[in-house]
Amino acid sequence: MLSQLIQVLDLVGVAVFAASGALVASRKEMDIIGFGVLATLTGIGGGTLRDLILDRPVFWIADQTYLVVCLAIAGLLYVTAHLVQRRYVVLIWMDALGLAAYGVLGAHIAAAAGTGIFPALAMGVMTATFGGVIRDVVSQEAPLFLNQEIYATAALAAAMVYLAGIGLGLAPPLAAAVGIGIGFVIRAGAIARGWHLPRYRPRPGRTYE
Amino acid sequence: MLSQLIQVLDLVGVAVFAASGALVASRKEMDIIGFGVLATLTGIGGGTLRDLILDRPVFWIADQTYLVVCLAIAGLLYVTAHLVQRRYVVLIWMDALGLAAYGVLGAHIAAAAGTGIFPALAMGVMTATFGGVIRDVVSQEAPLFLNQEIYATAALAAAMVYLAGIGLGLAPPLAAAVGIGIGFVIRAGAIARGWHLPRYRPRPGRTYE
Amino acid sequence: MLSQLIQVLDLVGVAVFAASGALVASRKEMDIIGFGVLATLTGIGGGTLRDLILDRPVFWIADQTYLVVCLAIAGLLYVTAHLVQRRYVVLIWMDALGLAAYGVLGAHIAAAAGTGIFPALAMGVMTATFGGVIRDVVSQEAPLFLNQEIYATAALAAAMVYLAGIGLGLAPPLAAAVGIGIGFVIRAGAIARGWHLPRYRPRPGRTYE
Repeated sequence: MLSQLIQVLDLVGVAVFAASGALVASRKEMDIIGFGVLATLTGIGGGTLRDLILDRPVFWIADQTYLVVCLAIAGLLYVTAHLVQRRYVVLIWMDALGLAAYGVLGAHIAAAAGTGIFPALAMGVMTATFGGVIRDVVSQEAPLFLNQEIYATAALAAAMVYLAGIGLGLAPPLAAAVGIGIGFVIRAGAIARGWHLPRYRPRPGRTYE
Repeated sequence: MLSQLIQVLDLVGVAVFAASGALVASRKEMDIIGFGVLATLTGIGGGTLRDLILDRPVFWIADQTYLVVCLAIAGLLYVTAHLVQRRYVVLIWMDALGLAAYGVLGAHIAAAAGTGIFPALAMGVMTATFGGVIRDVVSQEAPLFLNQEIYATAALAAAMVYLAGIGLGLAPPLAAAVGIGIGFVIRAGAIARGWHLPRYRPRPGRTYE
Repeated sequence: MLSQLIQVLDLVGVAVFAASGALVASRKEMDIIGFGVLATLTGIGGGTLRDLILDRPVFWIADQTYLVVCLAIAGLLYVTAHLVQRRYVVLIWMDALGLAAYGVLGAHIAAAAGTGIFPALAMGVMTATFGGVIRDVVSQEAPLFLNQEIYATAALAAAMVYLAGIGLGLAPPLAAAVGIGIGFVIRAGAIARGWHLPRYRPRPGRTYE
């Protein structure tokens, strides 16, 4: 049951991040292999970092499904991306869904490995943001991470809600669904309505002049 | 025999990527330590990622030869790079050789560790491209990866040819030689003649207006 | 005793790099979560890479103190950074202290794990520079690493002095103190006085024209 939940979340995260990577490849007008590489790097990046840090077997080595999914999505978008009028917008929404799913999944796997609450939250945020950071750094785009609106916060919220739900005795799939839902809604508000936390503003020192 | 093959390919990959890193250091007019750091990062980057993901001991920890090679190459290029008229061109060719060698080596080590075909190909491509990505990202140059012509495709071809050769019963050293040769020729065609796969082009949607 | 030394150095390195990350977040006018993420990535980046490569348990997973320190520093700087007149200068000095501390610590842990001298020095330099590289790459600032003055050299000097001290029979805490002191002084000279090694300069080939 739990391992199925992990597999489903991993597939969702991999698939939507792979799609976001392929859409960046389309914006860069890369060839089909470039689509495949960027989709794969983005799709598996976060989970790979998570497994390395928690000293688990890397998830896409044992089970080829994940790579096949990345490649299939890359191929699909290579022939269909032009049908999408505003690719950057789709990219952003794919990324948002991956952010929420991996926020929960990173926290879940870390907590299941027996870490404390802070490492579990950190794993949630790192897992959720790392694939996108790789995607943007490798393709020389400005990291979404640096945007004005809420970004990492949505992954953190997803992870916190999931862990709180577990702590309150919710069944893991329910807690996961609630965590992903809330994380996604927060990021959606950021995308659609510009939700943001107060940003640091340099304030004048306490001098008269 | 096989472990010797691995060692030779690792040395070739390390040496040529280290040279490409040192050449970037010369383009950035870094000091001798910068040459050493950039040569080393580029030289060992791909293999380090490979060993971490496959949960093997990291190759340059147990055997100091690799680091000594990186440093020797860095020192050599610090005093000789000015003799090279067109350093970027040499860099590109060194990178091409490393790409082919690591494409084969990554696939070989992954397959030997018992992974399926897709993880083996992915390891080939990631191992082959990662050192160069580190080199270019750290030194703020545009990743070769994003270029117009064939790049990751050459590493993929090297890995595929090697695995196919093994599957057909070729001796590993022969399969490796053929894989490296074909991968290198493909990248060479890209460098010298601009070989490229069709790139994604945004096409108009099916509207009259 | 030794493990206490490691813990102290790890805390110093984590704290000062976290502060440098939070200061970059203030320069980018990020929100409080952005401060937390950038402080944490920078604070734990180098040590994480070290532990992955040496196949040790990642230090911040078992002991939550490190993450709590990163977050506390992020929060503190979010409300106080405006009091600092010249934040970039403070950032540079924090980075310098972390560079020296992690240069020693990386070398110490690698040597204690039984590696040779070159891997120990490489671990010192990589551990010391990696957090800052992540910080600068993720936030799209020019890596300090590429600066004109001495940078990685200071980490290398710290690692070399520490290992030499141990080799000469100094008690590890003393050797560590001397190594950190010398590494910091070298970087301080670079910051304050522009100390630099001779940089590679393209020289004309031996032609008359």
